Amino acid sequence: MPFHRYLPFAEQITVELPDRTWPGRTITQAPRWCAVDLRDGNQALIDPMSAERKHRMFDLLVEMGYKEIEVGFPAASQTDFDFVRQLIEGDKIPDDVYIQVLTQAREHLIERTFAALQGAPRAIVHLYNSTSVLQREVVFGLDQDGIADIAAQGARLCLKHQEQMLAGSAVDTEIVYQYSPESFTGTELDFAARISDEVVDILGGTPEQKVIVNLPATVEMATPDVYADSIEWMHRNLRNRESIILSLHPHNDRGTGVAAAELGYMAGADRIEGCLFGNGERTGNVDLITLGMNLFSQGVDPQIDFRDMARIRRIAEHCNQMPVEERSPYAGDLVFTAFSGSHQDAIKKGFDHLERRAAEQGVAVADTTWAVPYLPIDPKDIGRSYEAVIRVNSQSGKGGVAYLLNSDHGIDLPRRAQVEFSAVVQHRADDGGGEVSGDEIWQIFRDEYLPVDSASHQWGYYRLGQVQTASTADGGFSMEVELEAGGSRTTEHAEGNGPVASLLEILARDGVDVRVLDYSEHAMSQGGDAQAAAFVECAIGERVLWGVGIDHNTTTASLKAVVSAVNRAVRSIEHPEDSAV
Amino acid sequence: MPFHRYLPFAEQITVELPDRTWPGRTITQAPRWCAVDLRDGNQALIDPMSAERKHRMFDLLVEMGYKEIEVGFPAASQTDFDFVRQLIEGDKIPDDVYIQVLTQAREHLIERTFAALQGAPRAIVHLYNSTSVLQREVVFGLDQDGIADIAAQGARLCLKHQEQMLAGSAVDTEIVYQYSPESFTGTELDFAARISDEVVDILGGTPEQKVIVNLPATVEMATPDVYADSIEWMHRNLRNRESIILSLHPHNDRGTGVAAAELGYMAGADRIEGCLFGNGERTGNVDLITLGMNLFSQGVDPQIDFRDMARIRRIAEHCNQMPVEERSPYAGDLVFTAFSGSHQDAIKKGFDHLERRAAEQGVAVADTTWAVPYLPIDPKDIGRSYEAVIRVNSQSGKGGVAYLLNSDHGIDLPRRAQVEFSAVVQHRADDGGGEVSGDEIWQIFRDEYLPVDSASHQWGYYRLGQVQTASTADGGFSMEVELEAGGSRTTEHAEGNGPVASLLEILARDGVDVRVLDYSEHAMSQGGDAQAAAFVECAIGERVLWGVGIDHNTTTASLKAVVSAVNRAVRSIEHPEDSAV
Repeated sequence: MPFHRYLPFAEQITVELPDRTWPGRTITQAPRWCAVDLRDGNQALIDPMSAERKHRMFDLLVEMGYKEIEVGFPAASQTDFDFVRQLIEGDKIPDDVYIQVLTQAREHLIERTFAALQGAPRAIVHLYNSTSVLQREVVFGLDQDGIADIAAQGARLCLKHQEQMLAGSAVDTEIVYQYSPESFTGTELDFAARISDEVVDILGGTPEQKVIVNLPATVEMATPDVYADSIEWMHRNLRNRESIILSLHPHNDRGTGVAAAELGYMAGADRIEGCLFGNGERTGNVDLITLGMNLFSQGVDPQIDFRDMARIRRIAEHCNQMPVEERSPYAGDLVFTAFSGSHQDAIKKGFDHLERRAAEQGVAVADTTWAVPYLPIDPKDIGRSYEAVIRVNSQSGKGGVAYLLNSDHGIDLPRRAQVEFSAVVQHRADDGGGEVSGDEIWQIFRDEYLPVDSASHQWGYYRLGQVQTASTADGGFSMEVELEAGGSRTTEHAEGNGPVASLLEILARDGVDVRVLDYSEHAMSQGGDAQAAAFVECAIGERVLWGVGIDHNTTTASLKAVVSAVNRAVRSIEHPEDSAV
Repeated sequence: MPFHRYLPFAEQITVELPDRTWPGRTITQAPRWCAVDLRDGNQALIDPMSAERKHRMFDLLVEMGYKEIEVGFPAASQTDFDFVRQLIEGDKIPDDVYIQVLTQAREHLIERTFAALQGAPRAIVHLYNSTSVLQREVVFGLDQDGIADIAAQGARLCLKHQEQMLAGSAVDTEIVYQYSPESFTGTELDFAARISDEVVDILGGTPEQKVIVNLPATVEMATPDVYADSIEWMHRNLRNRESIILSLHPHNDRGTGVAAAELGYMAGADRIEGCLFGNGERTGNVDLITLGMNLFSQGVDPQIDFRDMARIRRIAEHCNQMPVEERSPYAGDLVFTAFSGSHQDAIKKGFDHLERRAAEQGVAVADTTWAVPYLPIDPKDIGRSYEAVIRVNSQSGKGGVAYLLNSDHGIDLPRRAQVEFSAVVQHRADDGGGEVSGDEIWQIFRDEYLPVDSASHQWGYYRLGQVQTASTADGGFSMEVELEAGGSRTTEHAEGNGPVASLLEILARDGVDVRVLDYSEHAMSQGGDAQAAAFVECAIGERVLWGVGIDHNTTTASLKAVVSAVNRAVRSIEHPEDSAV
């Protein structure tokens, strides 16, 4: 790899701040957010948004709670210009929302920008020019003074055209200014501060009427601590800091845009610009969903409504015509999913623990403090169900299988039965590859434990028919059982401590030696017509096997469970190819 | 949003390190890498890898240069067990590669793990148990001592089964141990240090035979500076630091896995575990591609071969059965693409500048220091062409259009012609939406400037036929031109300073007032049969228009360019609907 072609960042730009204060700070409130989906995001789409898609994105951002929304670069694109006009003329801008428009520091663009804003109630005019060492040399062929002149001249032209616009308008448009020394990360800090200070001065920034100074990581050029250092340096060195809203605009070229935003915010910034799901040029802008949800997960009000994440994602995917990937934090398909057995087990126990604690406290689970292993937040808080949390494949163990059987079918397998059955499932999953759905698990469960009624699926050697029991006041018990064995039906009578003991006695007559090691039974749902599920762990000859029985009658369920275990033992001898155990 | 349900990290775990030294450090060499695609990555796939896919992934990782590869959890999965056996029995493990296997601290799993390793030349046995406050309470119901006992007992069992394995084997397998206090980020630091120290002691770690202590951000729970603080704390407080290889295993729940790895490495770690393209449970493991390429882009040898990124991606997508998203750093489809006009312009100038500098230095572009705006690395260094760098849609300006015309067709439009033509393209893109391909740009260019030969496409009022010129030694010049005007053909004769002046004279006779404002011409390729492209900027009546002519004959090309401009003027009057200008 020709790594020698690349200069370390420190050899390009000096960022030194040994007395930095940001590390270890904690974020306790949300920044001012600015969503730039309609501009920086839009310019990076293969298929930029149509008017319809622009309006849907704007409406979504407003509904979510964004108060500053960059809506376009109207001087550079007729579509953007028309869209800004539609927002203004259609009275689509809520009273507490600022639209923001981008312009380069060139007169004809500035003039057209103000033409686009005519009649708006309020707007942020975002002036930028590129300031980096590289762009000065390669693109502009200008020194620092030349570049500073472009910015200063742009600021003056803004004031001029603002005045002209207001003079010709019945609406007293409130204009807030924003200046970006674009490619800030490639700019010497003292020059970035100088040019920003000059622009703020020209624009007349005051503590009452602040100017936004936005510091873009146009290209992410170093580890995120370096960006944070540079932000803290600016925070300390900008001349009229109290007249400035310090804003961040991170990109993600090194995959650390979220970190840069968070550390930069800790370093003294007030505001963050980004896009939903990290859309944007190349590797994208910083992801507003992740930033907001990171706050939420720390108990900080994100000031944004993420409760219907599926809808947010659907609209963003429509507008951007790009999918949100499976592992995108908080929103991707797989981000609350556990396939691993040990994770599933811990999640299952976490859910149980949460329910117990909520019950003890007498509150709903949704109101109790969240604490479940492997799940940083409650998926329900963003409108996702638990259904997709635990999914089973060949890497899964008993926890996931047990969870799905319980949540889908109300069957609470005893622990050792979980171990047995998960081996059956894993055996099938290893063979077939891929995910095993809840339905498939249920199918495997029925194939393994429950004699199915249809003749073609009948695998049990024994089959239980009519059962009659009689018990006396002194504890006596008798039972008459219709039992099909290998196709021939007999009626057997036995007396014992109870139905299970009686059945064991009947089976013993047929030469089947069964001892019951463990037994449990539970209702599968509430109400009088609920079915019961019975589980028996049986020693049959040399083997230990579980059996399962399901019936409305609890007695019948337990007898069926014994028959299930015996049938499985018979099958494993007679048809080993059908037996996974 | 019910943010009150969540405890800030600082209220769960105390990480205090006011005298931290990691911020501002610079990474100057690659860590030891460990690729866990075949285990932690694999367990998170909807469709876990088949044997065929496992072998392809293993071979890829080896080819790329990973020396430590976690290949499975053989005691938990038959597929994993079989795969480890295949690697060993098939002699697939290169001499400098360590396979790594995961096991929980339970005897039957440890026993089976060593059974899987029988006959291996060398291996890392990775023992883990979960140590977090939450898991201790919810999953294990044990206190710190109980959890420490599990780890200590596991370590002792490892030694016992290692001894048994070696006693029964002809191969003197080298075993390196790794211990992970899983869910480290939710574990009190002093307990994590205590349990790690105890395990290292039992396993007999020495400076010569180090034990790997791996600190997983099993769930990312705080900003990445906190993880870095916790790593520096461990780095300083582990008892026998010189006997330990300190390893990181970040996940990405907060979208800051890459940052956590980088800052944690700066904080004193030696080794990083991750997956290609950030595959892994939920939001994924830290992305080894991004980490490695981040080093590369800073002039640091990543120790990994990324030169054929497309192939790496293709194999990973096959093995994982999951796509790499468009904005995935360094590897996504769109990460070197600029749609924005100003970006394209700067990139174009950057390329030109690079070529000039390389020529001045007498070296190839591929050997010169990289510096192009908006492109953090040279796409060619990872096997990507420049073709996809500049792509045009309605957000693009002259730079992108000019770049594509030049790179695809060797046409170097003069700057003002770029402005004119990009308006034509943008007009079409705004209408149709979506991206405009290089082919479409060429089509638009021909429709706009070049009279096409086919009768159905013929739009020019004037058409140039045969041209004969004669010049004398004293500077005299005469020209005879066959000119079709509105369908009727005439032969015209003129004398002037040269061919263009003569043609203007002929046109003037027909009532067309043309003045040439600017003119340039260049060869479109090298060699004797190269075509020339001529560009003339003409004032025609009130309007200023460019014309383009292409011909093997440089004279004819310039005449055609004039005709092109005149035809465009005529068309814009007669058929304004066909004219975009």
